[in-house]
Amino acid sequence: MIDKAIILSTGDELITGRVVDTNSAAIADRLFSAGVEVAAILKVGDDREKLLWAFHQARDLGDLVIGTGGLGPTADDLTTELVAEFLDRKLKQDEQVAAALKRRFETRGIAWTANNLKQAQFPEGSTIIRNPLGTAPGFLVSLGEGKTLIWLSGVPQEMMAMLDETVMPWIQQQRTEAPQISACTFKIHGLTESKLDDILKPLDLGSEARLSFRAHYPDLSLHLTVKGGRETQRIFGDLREQIRKLLGTYIYAEGDITLEGVIGQLLLEKQLTLALAESCTGGYLSHRITRIAGSSAYYYGGAVTYSNDAKTRFLGVRSTTLEQHGAVSREAALEMSSGIRDRTGASIGLSVTGIAGPSGGTPEKPVGTVWISIAQSNRHEARLFQFHGERERIILGTSQAALNWLRTVLLEWG
Amino acid sequence: MIDKAIILSTGDELITGRVVDTNSAAIADRLFSAGVEVAAILKVGDDREKLLWAFHQARDLGDLVIGTGGLGPTADDLTTELVAEFLDRKLKQDEQVAAALKRRFETRGIAWTANNLKQAQFPEGSTIIRNPLGTAPGFLVSLGEGKTLIWLSGVPQEMMAMLDETVMPWIQQQRTEAPQISACTFKIHGLTESKLDDILKPLDLGSEARLSFRAHYPDLSLHLTVKGGRETQRIFGDLREQIRKLLGTYIYAEGDITLEGVIGQLLLEKQLTLALAESCTGGYLSHRITRIAGSSAYYYGGAVTYSNDAKTRFLGVRSTTLEQHGAVSREAALEMSSGIRDRTGASIGLSVTGIAGPSGGTPEKPVGTVWISIAQSNRHEARLFQFHGERERIILGTSQAALNWLRTVLLEWG
Repeated sequence: MIDKAIILSTGDELITGRVVDTNSAAIADRLFSAGVEVAAILKVGDDREKLLWAFHQARDLGDLVIGTGGLGPTADDLTTELVAEFLDRKLKQDEQVAAALKRRFETRGIAWTANNLKQAQFPEGSTIIRNPLGTAPGFLVSLGEGKTLIWLSGVPQEMMAMLDETVMPWIQQQRTEAPQISACTFKIHGLTESKLDDILKPLDLGSEARLSFRAHYPDLSLHLTVKGGRETQRIFGDLREQIRKLLGTYIYAEGDITLEGVIGQLLLEKQLTLALAESCTGGYLSHRITRIAGSSAYYYGGAVTYSNDAKTRFLGVRSTTLEQHGAVSREAALEMSSGIRDRTGASIGLSVTGIAGPSGGTPEKPVGTVWISIAQSNRHEARLFQFHGERERIILGTSQAALNWLRTVLLEWG
Repeated sequence: MIDKAIILSTGDELITGRVVDTNSAAIADRLFSAGVEVAAILKVGDDREKLLWAFHQARDLGDLVIGTGGLGPTADDLTTELVAEFLDRKLKQDEQVAAALKRRFETRGIAWTANNLKQAQFPEGSTIIRNPLGTAPGFLVSLGEGKTLIWLSGVPQEMMAMLDETVMPWIQQQRTEAPQISACTFKIHGLTESKLDDILKPLDLGSEARLSFRAHYPDLSLHLTVKGGRETQRIFGDLREQIRKLLGTYIYAEGDITLEGVIGQLLLEKQLTLALAESCTGGYLSHRITRIAGSSAYYYGGAVTYSNDAKTRFLGVRSTTLEQHGAVSREAALEMSSGIRDRTGASIGLSVTGIAGPSGGTPEKPVGTVWISIAQSNRHEARLFQFHGERERIILGTSQAALNWLRTVLLEWG
């Protein structure tokens, strides 16, 4: 029975920081969706002692071990022979794999060297896992006590192909009897982590449900998982409903959609168009809107009016406004949003003007002071926000606040 | 003496595959550059037993343990109390941290809840590590036998700030007796990894030098490290000189500076101003220019002319040009760059128009077709580029190509 997995990622490139390991996250994602818990992820370099240590730990901790890397033909590729040593088995050449390897080299006109045969050798008793995209097949071998080791190529594309073609179907088959998992993700804006925690206190999670948060500024997401028995679906549905009620419009999306994705859907649905006038966000808002495929259907374009001259030239902001109130003011923000709306004919004009820092702040208008304004046909409003932290963080936070206000405007749209 | 490190990454989001762990690679990279070997990287979820197992393993294997994650205020943030339990120490509230936390909440007008005080508690005997970007400070605590545990925030930006501001200087200090390492990073544009490899073939690295590449699209960086003996400085200087000669202007920077940072310096130096007209990059170029602090000194602003109407209205592109040649054409790009330059009075007008996809491609102009144009007083030119891949990748690649062209224009500027 497969319940608990350990993932091993191997290779010197991982422990020297030259490469970000995406393999372990991809495997973890697939296993999680299949209801298999990942107890730990271990990464070690191409080193005999470290690899043997990792094999031992993995067998102790899990009943399924999935490893990647070290299946190549060169001297630093140690995996296969060390697995054989660890299991006290001999290496055995698979003649079918050897013949296929030779053919592959011949058809591509690449010189065949003896060390290439290394990739046709496997610990005795292994089941070979086909690699549809590369030269190194993987293998599946018993660790005893009902435990299994699966080893795959470390090349991400090859690994994914082997995982999806062979490994996941095998796991599903082993787990036909196993309890299922239900999970969903809520994307949230306008709450701190601790406030969120507070609001969710009334929830009774019982023994099978679990909540986890993730803050990746300016995003905050909440993940609900229910594992287990016959009642899973009902418990999951109840909890999801309760969370929706407790958080209301703090939830801007369910699932993996971004805030700009939600806004795109709303604009399309209501057949509205948007134009932007950005100062302190310097084009970042526009970038967020346009990174959504198909955004040209609802996005007219906009002006990045970084200088005062640009605010006047592109948006018609009066120079007296800039002189009397400054570029970071309610008045300037209002003229910017109506200016971009009037000049473009878009349904909604949104403007942002503020001080992203690190310089430019004053006691009255410290770094992080931001005015955001929205102009529609029957409504024209500006709001003051105060952000904190470094320049990049202020830009990010401003873009999130502006998009979230736009979302609420669109939700209320008649 | 710090020689061997273990990195711990913790959090449910890592073992369920929802997030790719970039923290461990970033820490490994810094440690490698400082000459500290990373023996293993361990990742576990927010789970008592797993965390304690990881602490034990880490202390057994290394003399320095660097961990991230689980310092938040919510119930699933277990790190601090478990470290205290593991070391058999009490938790102690740091009044300075507590007061700073309260002030932070007050100035931002956020409600203060009791669980926020969790972030002011540390295992007795800890040294607190300042978090310049967030609420959760880290800590450094002895593991006995000359071993040390360092724990940092799991939020990548915060982690990096704490690592660079406090942890790496501390490690350097501990290692004053250790063999020195000389290292530098070259940032490169316009070469594939294999072409770069080819160009660098003539280099004789000997036994002490090491070259590593990192491709993080659209960036490619080359890292030179020389470890060891008396001759380190001379070998390092020689190799750095040879690399500079071999790569010439393919190197756009040395060190951690970005391409937009290099451009900012050049514009300031030459006292020039820039205005942008973006179509397919949708504001991303403008965002890159303005994320550099002080960019208002040389950036006038720009127009994101996503629709044809915007190209005409904001830039004066003739509608006959758009009808006859299309918005993605040499002619449109040229009119866009001169339009933005003429209307703003900036020294340089740069325009971008292309097809970011996934839709909008034709056999003649497939997805990824991009025209970039630069207008100066005595020069007006457009160039055709072909990018590949997904929308986000095309936008990224376009922005990098545009900025790199601008860099060479600025280098040649009289």
